[in-house]
Amino acid sequence: MQNFTPGNPDFEKMVHEKIKGNHFTHFIGFEVHTITPGRVEGRMRLEEHHLQQMGFVHGGVTATVSDIVAGFAAFSLLAEGLGVVTVELKVSYLNPGKGHTLKAIGTVIKPGSKLHFCESELWVICDESEVLIAKSSSTMAILSKSDYVRK
Amino acid sequence: MQNFTPGNPDFEKMVHEKIKGNHFTHFIGFEVHTITPGRVEGRMRLEEHHLQQMGFVHGGVTATVSDIVAGFAAFSLLAEGLGVVTVELKVSYLNPGKGHTLKAIGTVIKPGSKLHFCESELWVICDESEVLIAKSSSTMAILSKSDYVRK
Amino acid sequence: MQNFTPGNPDFEKMVHEKIKGNHFTHFIGFEVHTITPGRVEGRMRLEEHHLQQMGFVHGGVTATVSDIVAGFAAFSLLAEGLGVVTVELKVSYLNPGKGHTLKAIGTVIKPGSKLHFCESELWVICDESEVLIAKSSSTMAILSKSDYVRK
Amino acid sequence: MQNFTPGNPDFEKMVHEKIKGNHFTHFIGFEVHTITPGRVEGRMRLEEHHLQQMGFVHGGVTATVSDIVAGFAAFSLLAEGLGVVTVELKVSYLNPGKGHTLKAIGTVIKPGSKLHFCESELWVICDESEVLIAKSSSTMAILSKSDYVRK
Repeated sequence: MQNFTPGNPDFEKMVHEKIKGNHFTHFIGFEVHTITPGRVEGRMRLEEHHLQQMGFVHGGVTATVSDIVAGFAAFSLLAEGLGVVTVELKVSYLNPGKGHTLKAIGTVIKPGSKLHFCESELWVICDESEVLIAKSSSTMAILSKSDYVRK
Repeated sequence: MQNFTPGNPDFEKMVHEKIKGNHFTHFIGFEVHTITPGRVEGRMRLEEHHLQQMGFVHGGVTATVSDIVAGFAAFSLLAEGLGVVTVELKVSYLNPGKGHTLKAIGTVIKPGSKLHFCESELWVICDESEVLIAKSSSTMAILSKSDYVRK
Repeated sequence: MQNFTPGNPDFEKMVHEKIKGNHFTHFIGFEVHTITPGRVEGRMRLEEHHLQQMGFVHGGVTATVSDIVAGFAAFSLLAEGLGVVTVELKVSYLNPGKGHTLKAIGTVIKPGSKLHFCESELWVICDESEVLIAKSSSTMAILSKSDYVRK
Repeated sequence: MQNFTPGNPDFEKMVHEKIKGNHFTHFIGFEVHTITPGRVEGRMRLEEHHLQQMGFVHGGVTATVSDIVAGFAAFSLLAEGLGVVTVELKVSYLNPGKGHTLKAIGTVIKPGSKLHFCESELWVICDESEVLIAKSSSTMAILSKSDYVRK
């Protein structure tokens, strides 16, 4: 984990404010609890509606949480007024997920002036043990105010 | 689109039965309406809880729906008693999604004895026009009954 | 295939000029022969040095040619003075490649002001038949002159 | 880095033997020098024919080397008589590569009975400093003798 300098000294508050309007994050019940520059960690209690037919965490839940923690990790480094959108996301499903809690960490591995490269790792917690169920790599584009207007 | 021979002549019923237990699909409100061998099409009415803070479809929704239609397209080709799990999924976010309906098509592009390669395309419908918002490529692994037991 | 308007009416010459300095393309022996706006097609005679130990086209050759045709497809749309670099490339290896010739087509599927999304398809020609051996998706970043200087 | 038990106690010799027939590896000049179970490290002197028009390492070289070290890392864990093929490979191009030497490490991050998930990291060495130019994630399929025959 590298040490990054955030573009906004108040990055923690900035990320929490942004998450408030991120409707799908709330709909699935995921909560971000730890924010450092370029790194976001969160977790979610697993319910039946997060599962597929074999009782494992649905691949869509895994992809969604990968996107959330990577995107907010990228966002945590930005100066005020900028935004991020996901350009592309690739998820590798390493292990089936069965447990009571999903834990996720997103990190920026290479920040840039236009693009941030990010990774995510997801674990399922079952009793005392944690199983790494997925890793993802993604590219996040930085949006300026003029980008919002153009779109 | 190629012509595939399904492993189960009753593939349509087999897919619909499987979807019943796919909890996260129902939780987000996505419905599969057309199933042919190696191809699945569905749609979803977009609500506020599917969006991110700018009012566009959340990247997690896009990834989830990509995974659903690709996975069931792969499943539609299988003989009875087999299953599929997603090995990996990559989503390219081509355009921001703003509209009332999300439409998705998943196709098998290369079936195999152990792996099926799939693609998904997603559109957002806004008034009369359809905008392609994402394309994905994925690898689906075929599970036999012994795989279920081992895991 | 969509109809794109190139940023330089002399795009064909511009692409051929750029390829001249693309050393690794020449080193492996790949030749681009058809250029239209947002689409590049080329081929290569397969030699033993392009193969792996089972006699199939090496995965690195497949990835390299995927990158070349996608990158020049993106480049074909640019105004003069701009450049492209690959942000990310994902290759799906659909079939083993055994034959005398490798054929490749790269296309832009969504051009943008900063990023072009591209795809590639590769076939191996053996006697009379063509086998699709790989599909790839990639993101290409557009570089202005100031980007060159900064780096 | 995890500790893996190789399927063949003589894994080091097995990998070196396999590399001998991997023609494209020799053609580009890449050499594997360190092999431990599930991890392969190698390097290559950079020549003009490895570059693109701006003088940076060609994206195809980066993808090729990513594939080589990941594939042999997967192969190092196998029992004798088995083989691997790349199912899919995704490369993120983090930094432009300019220097005299390319260094690469491939690792297995999750071995399985049918698929091994791998990652690669590539650095360019320039004077005293090393720059991480790419990370990749890949899926490798394990082939038994009957798979060779079928294909």
